[in-house]
Amino acid sequence: MVLGHESSGVVAEVGSKVTSLKPGDRVAMEPGVPCRRCDLCKGGKYHLCTQMVFAATPPWDGTLAKYYVNAADFCYKVPDTMDLEEAAMVEPVSVAVAINKTADLRAQQTVVVLGCGPIGILSQAVAKLFGARKVIGIDVVPSRLALAKQYGADGTFHPPRAEAGADPMAHAEKVAAQIKAEFGLGDGADVVLECSGAEPCIQLGVYVAKPGATIVQAGMGKEVVAFPVTAVCTQGLTIKGSIRYLNGCYPAAIDLISSGKINVKKLVTNRYKFEEAEEAFELVRQARQDVFKVMIAGVQE
Amino acid sequence: MVLGHESSGVVAEVGSKVTSLKPGDRVAMEPGVPCRRCDLCKGGKYHLCTQMVFAATPPWDGTLAKYYVNAADFCYKVPDTMDLEEAAMVEPVSVAVAINKTADLRAQQTVVVLGCGPIGILSQAVAKLFGARKVIGIDVVPSRLALAKQYGADGTFHPPRAEAGADPMAHAEKVAAQIKAEFGLGDGADVVLECSGAEPCIQLGVYVAKPGATIVQAGMGKEVVAFPVTAVCTQGLTIKGSIRYLNGCYPAAIDLISSGKINVKKLVTNRYKFEEAEEAFELVRQARQDVFKVMIAGVQE
Amino acid sequence: MVLGHESSGVVAEVGSKVTSLKPGDRVAMEPGVPCRRCDLCKGGKYHLCTQMVFAATPPWDGTLAKYYVNAADFCYKVPDTMDLEEAAMVEPVSVAVAINKTADLRAQQTVVVLGCGPIGILSQAVAKLFGARKVIGIDVVPSRLALAKQYGADGTFHPPRAEAGADPMAHAEKVAAQIKAEFGLGDGADVVLECSGAEPCIQLGVYVAKPGATIVQAGMGKEVVAFPVTAVCTQGLTIKGSIRYLNGCYPAAIDLISSGKINVKKLVTNRYKFEEAEEAFELVRQARQDVFKVMIAGVQE
Amino acid sequence: MVLGHESSGVVAEVGSKVTSLKPGDRVAMEPGVPCRRCDLCKGGKYHLCTQMVFAATPPWDGTLAKYYVNAADFCYKVPDTMDLEEAAMVEPVSVAVAINKTADLRAQQTVVVLGCGPIGILSQAVAKLFGARKVIGIDVVPSRLALAKQYGADGTFHPPRAEAGADPMAHAEKVAAQIKAEFGLGDGADVVLECSGAEPCIQLGVYVAKPGATIVQAGMGKEVVAFPVTAVCTQGLTIKGSIRYLNGCYPAAIDLISSGKINVKKLVTNRYKFEEAEEAFELVRQARQDVFKVMIAGVQE
Repeated sequence: MVLGHESSGVVAEVGSKVTSLKPGDRVAMEPGVPCRRCDLCKGGKYHLCTQMVFAATPPWDGTLAKYYVNAADFCYKVPDTMDLEEAAMVEPVSVAVAINKTADLRAQQTVVVLGCGPIGILSQAVAKLFGARKVIGIDVVPSRLALAKQYGADGTFHPPRAEAGADPMAHAEKVAAQIKAEFGLGDGADVVLECSGAEPCIQLGVYVAKPGATIVQAGMGKEVVAFPVTAVCTQGLTIKGSIRYLNGCYPAAIDLISSGKINVKKLVTNRYKFEEAEEAFELVRQARQDVFKVMIAGVQE
Repeated sequence: MVLGHESSGVVAEVGSKVTSLKPGDRVAMEPGVPCRRCDLCKGGKYHLCTQMVFAATPPWDGTLAKYYVNAADFCYKVPDTMDLEEAAMVEPVSVAVAINKTADLRAQQTVVVLGCGPIGILSQAVAKLFGARKVIGIDVVPSRLALAKQYGADGTFHPPRAEAGADPMAHAEKVAAQIKAEFGLGDGADVVLECSGAEPCIQLGVYVAKPGATIVQAGMGKEVVAFPVTAVCTQGLTIKGSIRYLNGCYPAAIDLISSGKINVKKLVTNRYKFEEAEEAFELVRQARQDVFKVMIAGVQE
Repeated sequence: MVLGHESSGVVAEVGSKVTSLKPGDRVAMEPGVPCRRCDLCKGGKYHLCTQMVFAATPPWDGTLAKYYVNAADFCYKVPDTMDLEEAAMVEPVSVAVAINKTADLRAQQTVVVLGCGPIGILSQAVAKLFGARKVIGIDVVPSRLALAKQYGADGTFHPPRAEAGADPMAHAEKVAAQIKAEFGLGDGADVVLECSGAEPCIQLGVYVAKPGATIVQAGMGKEVVAFPVTAVCTQGLTIKGSIRYLNGCYPAAIDLISSGKINVKKLVTNRYKFEEAEEAFELVRQARQDVFKVMIAGVQE
Repeated sequence: MVLGHESSGVVAEVGSKVTSLKPGDRVAMEPGVPCRRCDLCKGGKYHLCTQMVFAATPPWDGTLAKYYVNAADFCYKVPDTMDLEEAAMVEPVSVAVAINKTADLRAQQTVVVLGCGPIGILSQAVAKLFGARKVIGIDVVPSRLALAKQYGADGTFHPPRAEAGADPMAHAEKVAAQIKAEFGLGDGADVVLECSGAEPCIQLGVYVAKPGATIVQAGMGKEVVAFPVTAVCTQGLTIKGSIRYLNGCYPAAIDLISSGKINVKKLVTNRYKFEEAEEAFELVRQARQDVFKVMIAGVQE
């Protein structure tokens, strides 16, 4: 199967009814096309459409190809000032926009982001641009925390490891108390964005949230985790899953990048030619801490 | 410590500034008084106030006493047609109203309710009165399922026990598929109300929900459960904790009972005098399936 | 141009990719098909799509024809128990559902409906089915008020005519005070549904609403009216325009009719054959108070 | 009656139960204290409380006095870096925050603000800080448009006067089309903030809004205006009145000023001593275009 779903390109050909694009246009590609006819599509939640055709999701091939056919309204023309590498990076920025939209993040809220990988860091940047009062990034890798600060985090925190035999929930509660105290979060954060998928982070998120807070679950790791469900109940928390992009995320991401508000170039740590794609995937497979985003350039550039 | 928080009474005395009540008025009592000054109170979430004075919650005594002092605006006058037993039952009906409000339940939605104890059954009744298209009650006790139907459930389901050694999530997914098929729920229920607190029900709730659905966690059992968190993410679910009553729940519950829309009398299976209170608590402690609500009458009646 | 947009029919032929329908199926037809590609369509507001193809809206012909081509997902199969006359009446019921959805009507709210024509009356019926605590219908035609009560209104009110030379706003305020007093609405109604389009009703609606209330403007009369805008501001009101049907309204209306919750037959006061269509339109043109819905039956029945 | 409601001060004395403040603390004062007990207060809309005690609103005296008694939780301690003049300016910034919150303004929306007086200009600044993609300020006074740009407006527009005898709605529609074209707003703005109260602006707001948009009515001028109500209906618009401040607005405004994101000093065009208060009011009464905010300093500074 062909891989790839974070991609940009140049329009080669358009259908006879397409008026929004013409050959030669440079576009960022939203890689999933929904059925447009089901209740979810018509109700404003097309990203959950069960008939979605999504790149690199079986049985559908991905975008890592010379030509890719996509619906015209899911190809977004980018400004002349944006290069195709930035246009490919619209995808992860859109994911971060979707996470913040799912959180229904409001200006002046306090936000804790768990995980400072590319999505976590971009989510912090987007939260600040959405007007968050205070954004705190959490990760166990120091270099990622440093990068988070460059992307707008007001503070970062390296959570201590639990002592051997410690109760995970007691540990999570203790670490949460440290975070609240260190960053003046009072009874907790208004919003928690879980971008790691790590079990201890998912647990920590519940305890670092203030009563009535919203937690967005965006990271994916173990399918099943030990979860402090009673606290969700007694604290009146809201937990929302975030997947892919909501309507409007791609245009928002393009604006944030092209206006210079988010610098995506710094996240691209490695670049490969189209013919070297296998090496690129091998590098990603190694999961090195110094590798963030790996870009594969096509023929067109 | 004095117990009791589901209670009604007759006003004995009022403060000098109270104009809404007078001695002799019969009232249902909302048993928690918030600080009225914090951000949660002012922002419309007083039920989450961290300074809440709640009956029978240490260090605060409960209402099982001859006299109880409560804020006037948390004492709701009941109509002459409502007796004090019904007025005491306003409390669990308010909990059920809060659960449905927390779900943001809309008319014409499909609803699965996990657990058919008093709160589960009342939540089903309220869901129907809120205009739900189809309400399905789930429980392992057949007599409770029968009662659920009397309270408005369109259908009920007795989930099969998992086979020894079966993967709990695979089992939950299988049972969810059975429920969807049997009741024509398509991709799942619009709303799931978890009123049991039982781990298998919490798991089942995630799989019986349709993409984009809302699950309310109201039941409280084990503090920590094995939870299929990735499904929350990929299905774009919203999980909301519900605790106590939101603003407006007590008046709503009084209206639903006094208008005859919800018959609370049928839920009271056992009645005791004030002096027999210990026997009443002993009965509840036994957790018998045929015991629903146990009422202790005071001196006034 | 061909007229008609409230219609039902029998499927004659389906496109090669249609799996949800087959020839012979009886359907209610939602008469507007949006572009499915614009921001409004993708964002869950397809009813506002500026590229909408709507029956009987120039340049598009209406449904009063032997054959009409419609998108399959806008044709809703009706149950066997529903006849084609009821299926045609799904349209005005959908309008009433949309008005209530636009109001974001919640169970236990108090509702004032201005105008007791077909849409006003159906809006009252829907409000009750959505759990409204109290619904009051307002009209100057006594027979319509009587009909409103049959459709669920808890009370009706015949507003007095303003005295010659009276200030319209002072009059509206006075009438509003009468309504609040007579029906125990306190500071006003939680929700106002304006279904008349009459200028005095639009003004009355502002004054009969309680602080923070929602008013839905659904009636259309004069394009420009004298409007007490400062009161909107000081009372923190929300005014929302409602037009046509939101996603989900057609299925909801079919359920409400087929389940017997709304009897639409009583609203059909006059029936004509297809060949008599001109007489039917002439009757409607006369705007007689005893004429509610006029039905034109096609060849198929 | 004593005037004044935009004010700051130094705490002279505190009640015996007050723990959040002590004598000598410098505070911004929210000048309205609600009853805390009614449905609006408990439901998160205390600003609409009908029992509100609001400074300088009969029968209540205002704050232009040596001492003023206020509820402790409506006195917000300001950071050391903020002077008392800035602390007094928290009031109009809070109004602007409330207007944007009432609009439910989301990041990346396009916003048209009608009126560039102090509230209009601050609303533009707040909209940008809430992440608005494009903010356009409209006014007929060129100097105000220039100031709007300094406060973050992406563009400004001086609407042409209607020709003698022109239909006001046709004129409004024409001007709206000019604004949409000049600033690339497509079918209109996502959000319109009406901060002038001028009848032509209220009319223009309806036409410059895109289908489904939200208009906030914050300006107050004539109590009754000619209003294109049918367009509200056909365009599916939402119009919301904004008055005073919602919960959380004062803390938000303090953060925006103290963090340097909004410079309120530039809006203070004239300063008077406490003894010169009458001169200050005389100046405001003249409504000169070059007079924005007039500050009266007390004894303490």
